[in-house]
Amino acid sequence: MIRVGVNGYGVIGRRVADAIVLQPDMILAGVVKVKPDYKARIAVEKKYNLYASDEESLKSFHRSGLSPKGTLEDLLKEVDIIVDACPEGVGAQNSRIYEDLGKKAIFEGGEEHDLTGLSFVSQCNFDDAKGRRSLRVVSCNTTALCRVINSLDRAFGVKRARAVIVRRAADPDETSKGPIDAVVLDPVKLPSHHGHDVRTVLPNIDIVTMALKVPTTHMHLHSLIISVKEKTNEDKVRDSLKKTTRVLLVDSREGIKSTAQVADLARELGRPRSDLYEVAVWGDSIKIIDDEIYFYMGVHQEAIVIPENIDAIRALTGGYSKEESIRLTNKMLGIIEG
Amino acid sequence: MIRVGVNGYGVIGRRVADAIVLQPDMILAGVVKVKPDYKARIAVEKKYNLYASDEESLKSFHRSGLSPKGTLEDLLKEVDIIVDACPEGVGAQNSRIYEDLGKKAIFEGGEEHDLTGLSFVSQCNFDDAKGRRSLRVVSCNTTALCRVINSLDRAFGVKRARAVIVRRAADPDETSKGPIDAVVLDPVKLPSHHGHDVRTVLPNIDIVTMALKVPTTHMHLHSLIISVKEKTNEDKVRDSLKKTTRVLLVDSREGIKSTAQVADLARELGRPRSDLYEVAVWGDSIKIIDDEIYFYMGVHQEAIVIPENIDAIRALTGGYSKEESIRLTNKMLGIIEG
Repeated sequence: MIRVGVNGYGVIGRRVADAIVLQPDMILAGVVKVKPDYKARIAVEKKYNLYASDEESLKSFHRSGLSPKGTLEDLLKEVDIIVDACPEGVGAQNSRIYEDLGKKAIFEGGEEHDLTGLSFVSQCNFDDAKGRRSLRVVSCNTTALCRVINSLDRAFGVKRARAVIVRRAADPDETSKGPIDAVVLDPVKLPSHHGHDVRTVLPNIDIVTMALKVPTTHMHLHSLIISVKEKTNEDKVRDSLKKTTRVLLVDSREGIKSTAQVADLARELGRPRSDLYEVAVWGDSIKIIDDEIYFYMGVHQEAIVIPENIDAIRALTGGYSKEESIRLTNKMLGIIEG
Repeated sequence: MIRVGVNGYGVIGRRVADAIVLQPDMILAGVVKVKPDYKARIAVEKKYNLYASDEESLKSFHRSGLSPKGTLEDLLKEVDIIVDACPEGVGAQNSRIYEDLGKKAIFEGGEEHDLTGLSFVSQCNFDDAKGRRSLRVVSCNTTALCRVINSLDRAFGVKRARAVIVRRAADPDETSKGPIDAVVLDPVKLPSHHGHDVRTVLPNIDIVTMALKVPTTHMHLHSLIISVKEKTNEDKVRDSLKKTTRVLLVDSREGIKSTAQVADLARELGRPRSDLYEVAVWGDSIKIIDDEIYFYMGVHQEAIVIPENIDAIRALTGGYSKEESIRLTNKMLGIIEG
C-alpha cells in the first residue's frame, strides 16, 4: 500500500484526497490545511487525518475547537509520497521540506516546470516518471490539450496546433472574482502560456494559444484549429478521439450545445461533486477544411487533473505500467473506456 | 439633399436615423415602427416623422394615443432611398414593396447576400454600389473582419485568416436572452457563417471562423490568426492598422484589458449612446510568430455598421467618391482619422 499525504485541501486537494481513498493500493495518511474553515470541518467529518500547515496554523485550529493530529512535518513522517495542492508558488517553497525528509512529491500546474523537470500527463509520458523523486501534474487546460493533441499526433501527425481558450473566470465558490459583464484578454500580450506549457509535455508540437476570461463558472471552452500531416476525414478523427482514454465525445444532436449542458451531463453521471474527469469534445463540431481539423472541447477545470494525480502517485512509486495504472484509476473513478 | 426613410426603429434603425440627421447632405424623411412602444415615443420626442408599418399597425398607434403621419407606403412616396433596419428576414419581404415603388434600398446583415447581390463595407467596395438599386450592409462581425483583413491584405497580402468570435449573447436591453453561466457554441457545426459572409465582400480571402456566445452585453471579441505573404513585423502591422479608417488601436498599458474598458472608453468619447463606430484592435496584443499575425479586437455590435449605412446611402445615390463619403461620415459622426 502506498501511503499518501495531501498538502492543501482546496479545489484540487479535496478531490485528490477522495480519489486516493477510492484506490485499492493507496492509503490517505492525512490532509494538511492552513486555516480552520468549513473545508477543514469537511475533512474532519470525512474522518480524514487532519494536519495544520505549521505551529502557527495549529494554534488557530485549536482556537476554533479543532484538533489536528499535528503539522505538515508530522504528516510527512507517515507518508511515502506527498501531493502538494497548495496555491501557486507555495509548492515551490514546500519542495525543500519534502526534499529534506527524502519524500517523493507531486506538484500541480501552478508551479513551474523547472521545479521538478517533469511535466506529467498520464497518457503522454507516464514512463518518464520512473525513478524520479518528483513531478508536476500540468494545469487543467494543458492536460486537456495534451490528451487530445497527443492522440491526434499519434493518429495523423500534428503539423500545427492553434487554440483559443475561453476560460471560466471563477470556480463556483469564488464570489469575489469578476468579471460580471466583460470578456477579459488574459493576457493581452500573446501568446498565452498554455502553448508553452503543452510543450513541457509534448516538446515536438508546434502550438500557439490565445486565452480569454468570461463570466462563467462551469468549464473552459477551447476552439481548436489543428493541421495534420496525414490526409484524414471527420469520421476518422472522431473514431480516434473516441478511442482515446479520458476523452468523452458529446453531440449537439443530443442537446449538448454549451458548457452548461456538459456540466448537467456530468451531474447525471453520478460522480462526486458532479466532476467530469474527461475532456468533452463535441463530436459533431469536428470539421476538416483542407488540412485543418476544427473542433470545440470543454474542460472541467476542477476535475480533469484528478486522474493524472492518481496515476502520478503510481508512476513515481513504481510497480505499475502506464496501461495498468490508467485502467485502475479509470475503474475506481468511474471513467468509462472508449 | 438626399431624402432618406428608415424602416425599423430598433437597435440599428434608431442609430441610423440620428446619424442621417447629422449629415449635411441628407434629410430624414421619417421612421417606421410596427409597435407603439417606448421607442416610438422617443421618435416623437425627437420630432421625427413617425410612420406605422401598415394599416393594422396604424390602428394600434391610434389606440395608444400616438398619431403617425401614415404608413410605410406613405413614407416611401417621400423618399429617394429607404434604409431597412427591420428584423432578420423582414427586409426580404419588404424588398418587393420598395421595388414596386422604384425606391433604392439598403438592407442590413440579417438579410441574405442574394437579396441585393452586393454586400457592402465602405472601405472595401464603395464603388461597386454605383448604379445599383440596392445593397446589403453586412453584420457587425463581418464589417469588423472586412475592415481589418482588407487593410492587412493590402499591406502584406493575406494568405489565410482564422478567427474565433466570442459574441456578446444579448444587447443591453434584451432581458429575456441567456445564457447566464455558460459558453454556448453558436453554432456547434463548423465553420460559423462569418467567414462565408466576409467572402461576400472580399471574395478572394481564405477565411474560416468559429463562434461562441458568452454572458456579456458590451461587445464581440475576436481572436485572430492571420498568415500573410509578405514578411513583416509587429510595428508595421500596428502602423498599417493605425492608418486604417474606422480602426482604433487600444493598449493594455493604458488600462484597457477587456471589452468593459473599451466600452468605458467609448462612453468617454462623448458619442451618442456611447457608441463605438470603430473596431478596437489591441495594439499590444499584436504578435507575429513565423508567418502568422495574432491579435485581439473588440466590436461594438450596436454601432459599428452605422458609418457603413451612411456611406451606403451616398454610394447608391451617387455624387461622392469613396474617400469623400468616408471623410464626411467620419467628420459628422466624430470618428477621428489615423
